[in-house]
Amino acid sequence: MTVKLPISLKKYLIALVTLWLAFGADVAQAQSKATWIWYPGDYEIWLSNKMQNRRTERGSFFPPFWKLDSHYVLIDFHKDFELAAPEEAEIAVEGQYNLKLDGKAISGYPKQITLPAGKHRISLKVYNQGSVPAVFVKSAHLVSDTSWRVTFEDKEWIDASGKTSDISATQYLSAGAWNFNEASAQPSTFRLPTVAQQAVSQDKQKHFILVDFGKETFGYIKLQGVKGKGRVTLYYGESKEEALDTQGGELLDRIDVDQPQIGDITLDGSRAFRYVNVQYDDAVDIDKVSMLYEYAPVQQRGSFSCSDDQINKIWQVSAYTMQLNTREFFIDGIKRDRWVWSGDAYQSYLMNYYLYFDSPTVTRTLAALRGKDPVTSHVNTIMDYTFYWFIGIYDYYQYTGDKTFIQQFYPRMQSLMNYCLSRRNKDGMMEGLTGDWVFIDWADGLSKQGEVSFEQLLLARSLETMALCANIMHDGKGAILYNAAAKDLKAKLFAYYWNPQKHALVHSRINGKPTDNVTRYANMFSIFFNYFTKVQKQDVKKYVLLNNSIPKITTPYMRFYELEALCAMGEQNYVLQQMKDYWGGMLNLGATSFWEEYNPDKKGAEHYAMYGRPFGKSLCHAWGASPIYLLGKYYLGVKPTAPGYAHYLIEPQLGGLQWVQGAVPTPAGDIQVYCNRKQIKVNAANGMGTLRFKSKAKPVCKGATFNFANGYYEMTVQPGKNYTVNYSAL
Amino acid sequence: MTVKLPISLKKYLIALVTLWLAFGADVAQAQSKATWIWYPGDYEIWLSNKMQNRRTERGSFFPPFWKLDSHYVLIDFHKDFELAAPEEAEIAVEGQYNLKLDGKAISGYPKQITLPAGKHRISLKVYNQGSVPAVFVKSAHLVSDTSWRVTFEDKEWIDASGKTSDISATQYLSAGAWNFNEASAQPSTFRLPTVAQQAVSQDKQKHFILVDFGKETFGYIKLQGVKGKGRVTLYYGESKEEALDTQGGELLDRIDVDQPQIGDITLDGSRAFRYVNVQYDDAVDIDKVSMLYEYAPVQQRGSFSCSDDQINKIWQVSAYTMQLNTREFFIDGIKRDRWVWSGDAYQSYLMNYYLYFDSPTVTRTLAALRGKDPVTSHVNTIMDYTFYWFIGIYDYYQYTGDKTFIQQFYPRMQSLMNYCLSRRNKDGMMEGLTGDWVFIDWADGLSKQGEVSFEQLLLARSLETMALCANIMHDGKGAILYNAAAKDLKAKLFAYYWNPQKHALVHSRINGKPTDNVTRYANMFSIFFNYFTKVQKQDVKKYVLLNNSIPKITTPYMRFYELEALCAMGEQNYVLQQMKDYWGGMLNLGATSFWEEYNPDKKGAEHYAMYGRPFGKSLCHAWGASPIYLLGKYYLGVKPTAPGYAHYLIEPQLGGLQWVQGAVPTPAGDIQVYCNRKQIKVNAANGMGTLRFKSKAKPVCKGATFNFANGYYEMTVQPGKNYTVNYSAL
Repeated sequence: MTVKLPISLKKYLIALVTLWLAFGADVAQAQSKATWIWYPGDYEIWLSNKMQNRRTERGSFFPPFWKLDSHYVLIDFHKDFELAAPEEAEIAVEGQYNLKLDGKAISGYPKQITLPAGKHRISLKVYNQGSVPAVFVKSAHLVSDTSWRVTFEDKEWIDASGKTSDISATQYLSAGAWNFNEASAQPSTFRLPTVAQQAVSQDKQKHFILVDFGKETFGYIKLQGVKGKGRVTLYYGESKEEALDTQGGELLDRIDVDQPQIGDITLDGSRAFRYVNVQYDDAVDIDKVSMLYEYAPVQQRGSFSCSDDQINKIWQVSAYTMQLNTREFFIDGIKRDRWVWSGDAYQSYLMNYYLYFDSPTVTRTLAALRGKDPVTSHVNTIMDYTFYWFIGIYDYYQYTGDKTFIQQFYPRMQSLMNYCLSRRNKDGMMEGLTGDWVFIDWADGLSKQGEVSFEQLLLARSLETMALCANIMHDGKGAILYNAAAKDLKAKLFAYYWNPQKHALVHSRINGKPTDNVTRYANMFSIFFNYFTKVQKQDVKKYVLLNNSIPKITTPYMRFYELEALCAMGEQNYVLQQMKDYWGGMLNLGATSFWEEYNPDKKGAEHYAMYGRPFGKSLCHAWGASPIYLLGKYYLGVKPTAPGYAHYLIEPQLGGLQWVQGAVPTPAGDIQVYCNRKQIKVNAANGMGTLRFKSKAKPVCKGATFNFANGYYEMTVQPGKNYTVNYSAL
Repeated sequence: MTVKLPISLKKYLIALVTLWLAFGADVAQAQSKATWIWYPGDYEIWLSNKMQNRRTERGSFFPPFWKLDSHYVLIDFHKDFELAAPEEAEIAVEGQYNLKLDGKAISGYPKQITLPAGKHRISLKVYNQGSVPAVFVKSAHLVSDTSWRVTFEDKEWIDASGKTSDISATQYLSAGAWNFNEASAQPSTFRLPTVAQQAVSQDKQKHFILVDFGKETFGYIKLQGVKGKGRVTLYYGESKEEALDTQGGELLDRIDVDQPQIGDITLDGSRAFRYVNVQYDDAVDIDKVSMLYEYAPVQQRGSFSCSDDQINKIWQVSAYTMQLNTREFFIDGIKRDRWVWSGDAYQSYLMNYYLYFDSPTVTRTLAALRGKDPVTSHVNTIMDYTFYWFIGIYDYYQYTGDKTFIQQFYPRMQSLMNYCLSRRNKDGMMEGLTGDWVFIDWADGLSKQGEVSFEQLLLARSLETMALCANIMHDGKGAILYNAAAKDLKAKLFAYYWNPQKHALVHSRINGKPTDNVTRYANMFSIFFNYFTKVQKQDVKKYVLLNNSIPKITTPYMRFYELEALCAMGEQNYVLQQMKDYWGGMLNLGATSFWEEYNPDKKGAEHYAMYGRPFGKSLCHAWGASPIYLLGKYYLGVKPTAPGYAHYLIEPQLGGLQWVQGAVPTPAGDIQVYCNRKQIKVNAANGMGTLRFKSKAKPVCKGATFNFANGYYEMTVQPGKNYTVNYSAL
């Protein structure tokens, strides 16, 4: 029999593309590999508890000061399946469980079962108090994956006559998973991998070794050739000064060794350091000190190089800073907190899109930060950090196109937003209430009083995120509500804070009256949120961003946004110089990773002090790595314009450089860009791109045509094709 | 120097009594013994998870179908103290912790510290994922007890300059505790005690032993003199029929033994049984079967005896039924669920006040049932069971006078009540919504449709409980709100459901229209809730309670309330006969504990069937033990009239018996009562009592005077005095 195709080739191709787009949008739901599954967010919460309780301060345990949630201890998993023939399934479970086929229990704790042919339902109900209830099922055609349904409350009861009721349909969510794809890869046993590394120098003296690993690093110290009995104390230092200051350093470990035979000892606790000062008793001898470097096995897909070696070094050190701070989750810094802070993590998400494009680390971090209901405080207790959580989801959807996280967490998005909205004052504005930390930035004398414009701005964007997600969830009522609230708040933002004399948004209102105080925060965010008119943007650039009388920013954290705002306005030349001054300034001081704070006015060991402690400052802070994001998004010029890079823009900017080159990862392959003053080369694995640039002469490119509008040339970039454009930079 | 007492002796005595009352009211807060402490409710939730996940059904794990909550994994404990001189304190902690004195961390995990003289604050912050964060501190003058403050969210942050903020004051609660009064008595290692018990008969045949323990019991089977290798299967039976039905019984255990040397094996899982049918492979031999009886070490303080031996037997078997079902918590029944069910537990609380007066088992059960926020369903998913939870607190306060539970749980009382109120329909009535189980009772054909009057009645009483607790918590706004809602609902109850033709509340309204259906439930509760007028009470007695055309109750569960209503109306003679018929009926069938359901019309093994299974019925169900409550409250006639028995009533009723005698426990000592037709003897350890009775002749009692009003003689019972009243029963 032959079948005549009922559609033309053109229609067929459209259908193929549609299919691909649908697949791309829901890629995380379409796993076909067996993987361990759990209630969404539960493993992430459990793992983050474990990680966040590893902080120590001079030998004392130092846990977070916010509520830590926990997993549901009892979870019901099920999947409806249909098989042509019976097949054997392997079963692995973390916890005490029952297994049912079509509601009938199989006795005991089966490790293997025969699945019958036909349409059936398999369910597993798992209790686990100490770690997360999780299951792994694998047969030829039935595998545990995120298409399974889970609930913490199955409400399946039986009446006196034996009739069963199950009315929990609305409670089911799709299962959570990561990459535990073997029965033996039990989620509760997960540890980051390690690799042995050697010191670059060891200064060994009597009962004392000062070790230098040559750069900032993280892991477990290994004492080699240990003999004798006694106390060994390790003083860690991100700087040599810190390692040598046995009274003032942040990190130390004391262990008692009893080693009649010579042997090696690896410390239990992972620490951040470049230098280690190992001191030991008379009765102890140690041959040498090495380490096990601990790391997250994420793949570095993004790259960047250019004609300026200092910028290349800045990018490399930024990438290394990100590597060190990308662990089970995106953390703030490796020495001190090692906690998941929403504002810090938000920048890591953005940098990640230009370095690893590792989506699981983003959603894992978002899940850990959100925890569980009820909401009793802002995320990390910080008002602005709650808002970054929402905005992070907005960006995540834009970069990845993945709806799974939104589908799983929309109820928790709603309850967190309800918490925020219920805390507005009578004017509908957010003000710090008892228990709220209004952070904004580490900056001397920064006012947190009253209604801070920056907080309203972040809430407005958060409401826009809610509206976006409400639409994805087909929650029409929610979309209307959130959109209206966002619109209302944006109107107030300009009515209350815009000061025409100052050509800027002012910092706050106190007792209903706007202050005269102009700070950079709300102004720079309004630029890349696109809340300003063209005129306002130019005004703000002149009167705020490039105005030295407005208080300077001294953290890489807020410099991230300041420089982004300037890039968004085409100030790449200026920003390049700023990067060279600021990040280059840290490199000039010997930085091997970027810092929590950098004030060029300070001298020597002053740089290491913070929080009233001589070495309180983190010298390896994720938010120090922003050049990755700035160079990828605003110099290579690549960003998505539709969710998941279905459409995207390439707008290379030399910013005074002779050439730039690099790769930007996307959900399905990379976008390669090379640009000098005469030639642009691009190649993209997937999606539909627009290459945009200015040129003195009409550009030429084989296989492409150009539109010219508003001073820009534009051409379409098809997937999988190499383009070389000859042009002439302005 | 001499100090002149500024108060007269009289004032001094008043002050002493006031002090005593204050102490009595807050007794649980005034512990002076060191004890392990935790966040209130957390240990109870953790322990109930453990207990409730011990259910099996024919060898399959069978967990609850409602949400199980978990403890907070990170808790901050603190106590402000003042010492005259430094002293050494012992420290024990379950979890990873830091210890601070006046906010300064002590390095490491100290097991002992020196507390400085003067005013100071000690704090411990504890992380524990698998079990409950708990601490034990003991020095000469500072001990961990319920006066310590705890929080799950300390919000103690530090700014860049090193300044610390702590703004969590409103989040602190007083710590929870039980009776773990030694550092070595770690809460996580708690197990109920066991004692060896022997069978009364063993029928041993080839590869088969049928064991009879002589009565319903609970614990771990011990196989003695086991030798060989092979499979042993144990079929448990509350009846002989169940143990012998290897296909139809509810409980079984299969173990594989490998015993080259003769030895004993104790089973891991505790089970309920009277009979055990032990079957084993050819290659295995077993000498005999015994058990470890597992029990809660609560003290039986209440007692009852009378001139009728059958009633005495009923009381004894009731007490044994309660003993078996009083475990880590008050559970429903020992064979099947072994879960904490609120409606079942509510009756156990009431029986407990007349048997053990063990307050910790009440509050532990209330805490376990409530779990944590957010509320996602009714308690045990059952609407009525939510209301019993509230009403249980009302009674608990009345019987014990203890405010601690209310102080710790008022926020969770509010959130559960908010859940209820948010689920009312447009007429302000409760109706079963998706996911709600409207239970009422096991009864064929009982309608759960529409607005069931019984549910509104329980909500009204729950609202009264909230008003009471709001007053205790000085929540004036709450008290007004809850009182108004209760009043409104009670008005509707009579406006909507009272049918003058039927002289009764009807069962329900469907689509806003009252039905004609009269059932006993709302009517009998309205009597002892005192919601009816005198006339209504008499009408209901005649037209409902004593009317055989109204569907009969077949569970001891609802017979509890039915007989209580009749007792409250002075029908002790009738109720005594009912007890003899109903509970006596079970005894006549060989019951050694009382059942989940008993229908005299059934025959033989029909009695064991329920839920569509031949042995589905529990033959040892807590709700079967109500004679304890009825005989104590309505025959000995003792009940509190002010919280904690500060005032109480003794109103003995012979109900046709020649004499009754017994003890009723109170928070501080027992009340002893003896009564025959000529003499009443009372003695009470504490509180101010009123003895009330009817007499043909003027009664005589040394040291007492009588008031006579409304046909009753009344005299005051002072604490610690023996009274003998000569009177003449009507």
